[in-house]
Amino acid sequence: MADEVILLDFWPSPFGMRVRVALAEKGIEYEYKEENLSDKSPLLLKMNPVKKQIPVLIHNGKPVCESLIIVRYIDEVWKHKSPLLPSDAYQRAHAMFWADYVDKKIYSLARQVWLSSGEEHEAGKNELMGCFKLLEGELGDKTYFGDDTFGIVDVALIPFYSWFYMFEQCGNMSIEAECPKLVAWGKRCMEKESVSKSLPDQHKVYDLLMDLKKKFLAK
Amino acid sequence: MADEVILLDFWPSPFGMRVRVALAEKGIEYEYKEENLSDKSPLLLKMNPVKKQIPVLIHNGKPVCESLIIVRYIDEVWKHKSPLLPSDAYQRAHAMFWADYVDKKIYSLARQVWLSSGEEHEAGKNELMGCFKLLEGELGDKTYFGDDTFGIVDVALIPFYSWFYMFEQCGNMSIEAECPKLVAWGKRCMEKESVSKSLPDQHKVYDLLMDLKKKFLAK
Repeated sequence: MADEVILLDFWPSPFGMRVRVALAEKGIEYEYKEENLSDKSPLLLKMNPVKKQIPVLIHNGKPVCESLIIVRYIDEVWKHKSPLLPSDAYQRAHAMFWADYVDKKIYSLARQVWLSSGEEHEAGKNELMGCFKLLEGELGDKTYFGDDTFGIVDVALIPFYSWFYMFEQCGNMSIEAECPKLVAWGKRCMEKESVSKSLPDQHKVYDLLMDLKKKFLAK
Repeated sequence: MADEVILLDFWPSPFGMRVRVALAEKGIEYEYKEENLSDKSPLLLKMNPVKKQIPVLIHNGKPVCESLIIVRYIDEVWKHKSPLLPSDAYQRAHAMFWADYVDKKIYSLARQVWLSSGEEHEAGKNELMGCFKLLEGELGDKTYFGDDTFGIVDVALIPFYSWFYMFEQCGNMSIEAECPKLVAWGKRCMEKESVSKSLPDQHKVYDLLMDLKKKFLAK
């Protein structure tokens, strides 16, 4: 029996994009189900009762939640191509450290740049740029964070490339001026079909985030 | 050549305790180095330049950081006994979901109960108890979170058992009254030598946390 794979997702979510990129890297066919986060489907509530969040990967009826856990699950189950984690335990721990760093830092700072104002906005902007500089240091002159191989750190971070235009507009800053290697990496990743077909256009993301901001601030 | 294993740690840290428990489960000898977090050692700053946090496991000169990543690394490198993660990919993802849940939720709520007052304190206390109830539901009538096997969810959560007395004193609540199965699980884990020798006494943790609270509030 062929695997039944369903993804519960929301198109501008960087967490959802991670799973889309990983599935595309592995060439796995799946059914994409867009969620309305202000009116979550019974399926989402049933499949992720603890967090009630997307993305959820439903593999043969069984849910896997949390984007990095899903990506690692995909890598462990579909081993036939495109390994996303190093085979060496130390290198694997090193990659997981950076994927976890991205996970814990970038989204909360992204929200701060997007939704706050005044001092909080400025602090978020500076801290976000500090993170990007650290990540640029880790990238160095490598092709990908996984060296010659596109790996889990790349998968964790690349979705935020689709938020770069929002960061630059809201933060009145140039990421390319401060982190040229990171932006070059983003462009390089976008040359991969698995990435380009999984990430929305930066302007489309910007427009949606500005609409959502108006709604949040009107509450 | 025998493995050289060093642990940079701070005794009341639940994150450090996780690593101590995992190393004890595997029967690995190591050198324990206590850190003074208000005057961090050059070794800590060198080994974890990004986060500058304990615990750090230094294995044959190479650092591994972030407690759950260290625990998984230990499990992958020392496979000879006491597997901490399930061998099945789906069960592994399920265990990682709950370990991640503990990681993201419990410490920040613990700080809120410990250090805040008024409404913030009350909200933290209620949310923490909500998390414990959810975890008790996941535990059910199993011996451990890993069923018959003491596993990574147990390793992630058990350190907070040494903070229970602080929660009860600061929060004026009884965890046992609301979550009897969770407290019974904590006691069961404490019967394991790997746990009892890795966790400090609840009263000793309480005394230290109250001292630290006075210092924080005096700042």
